[in-house]
Amino acid sequence: MLTLYDYLPSGNGYKVRLLLSQLGIPFRLVEKDILKGETRTPEFLAINPDGRIPAVVFEDNRRLAQSDAMLFYFAEGTPFLPADRFARAEALQWMFFEQYSHEPQVAVARFWIHCLGKRKEWADRLQEKWQKGYQALDVMERHLDGRKFFVGERYSIADIALYGYTHVAEEGDFDLDRYPHIRAWLDRVADQPGHVLITQAEFG
Amino acid sequence: MLTLYDYLPSGNGYKVRLLLSQLGIPFRLVEKDILKGETRTPEFLAINPDGRIPAVVFEDNRRLAQSDAMLFYFAEGTPFLPADRFARAEALQWMFFEQYSHEPQVAVARFWIHCLGKRKEWADRLQEKWQKGYQALDVMERHLDGRKFFVGERYSIADIALYGYTHVAEEGDFDLDRYPHIRAWLDRVADQPGHVLITQAEFG
Repeated sequence: MLTLYDYLPSGNGYKVRLLLSQLGIPFRLVEKDILKGETRTPEFLAINPDGRIPAVVFEDNRRLAQSDAMLFYFAEGTPFLPADRFARAEALQWMFFEQYSHEPQVAVARFWIHCLGKRKEWADRLQEKWQKGYQALDVMERHLDGRKFFVGERYSIADIALYGYTHVAEEGDFDLDRYPHIRAWLDRVADQPGHVLITQAEFG
Repeated sequence: MLTLYDYLPSGNGYKVRLLLSQLGIPFRLVEKDILKGETRTPEFLAINPDGRIPAVVFEDNRRLAQSDAMLFYFAEGTPFLPADRFARAEALQWMFFEQYSHEPQVAVARFWIHCLGKRKEWADRLQEKWQKGYQALDVMERHLDGRKFFVGERYSIADIALYGYTHVAEEGDFDLDRYPHIRAWLDRVADQPGHVLITQAEFG
């Protein structure tokens, strides 16, 4: 069985937990508390030299880091990855958008406020996170106007990648009420068969 | 012919120029000066709603954003993308590492210092960029100890993605003298057939 090293509040880890659950792939969850530095120990750095969760270790000891690389790997050959070459590139486009334009703003604001409880300490930097985070949400809202999902009108790993932190953006003080298309899309994603919650610790 | 909207000093744009040149795919280069806000005009936002270069427009008007999604798209079915499924995931792992752990540090320090000439104005934030940028370079250095390339011992889009900003890291005041494995790898990448320079504006 494969092992997923993870931190339950992490949206990045959640993306992988969600896909594995929907694919019916069993996995062992090993929690690492990033607030206690458990991803920067020599033992963990031997698993992922970049010192981040999630990290996957396969039964034959191969390792893989980066949540969106995991999504792509597990989704290959399944309906979760578009079969069409250009649609596959579009899925990757949205996944790189997520890691570059969305996560560093939306997830980091949530981490400071919700996980660390340090809204005041990070007040200056939060202004920038909100401004740029709303820019990313604006891009999503415009794309979802008239579309059900991000790529090819069907649920894919592009939706899973963007759902991870968007569905908890309010924990970073983002107001989603101004985004009707995003809200309807969040509901559609949550309605998919086999959906699990970010707080869920037991699978299979 | 496809059109690449780009800003010549951009390492992200350069990655795409380099792969297209090595694949022998002709393209029309349209320069957009990000310092003059040319990627935030209504006309450009119609091409890439995220307001960033590089952006590709195909002859049939399809559009693609995100440099690493472009690399994957153009490399599919060529030796630049590993044929093995796990190696393909490893290539994506390094490309997501590049966009998440490397580019926001190494490229941004270079942008502030080399493109904007504002080392003093950004002095406080540069400390953090250098610290985290060196962490990313450390990860690369350890991985390249005993390896010729990032994945499967052959040149791939993982190398192109990481080469883009690493080879100009010194323009962001990063000292590469401490990284013998990275320096040897930079030389190996520059020795590949069809290599072009980041400053090169004419192709084909």
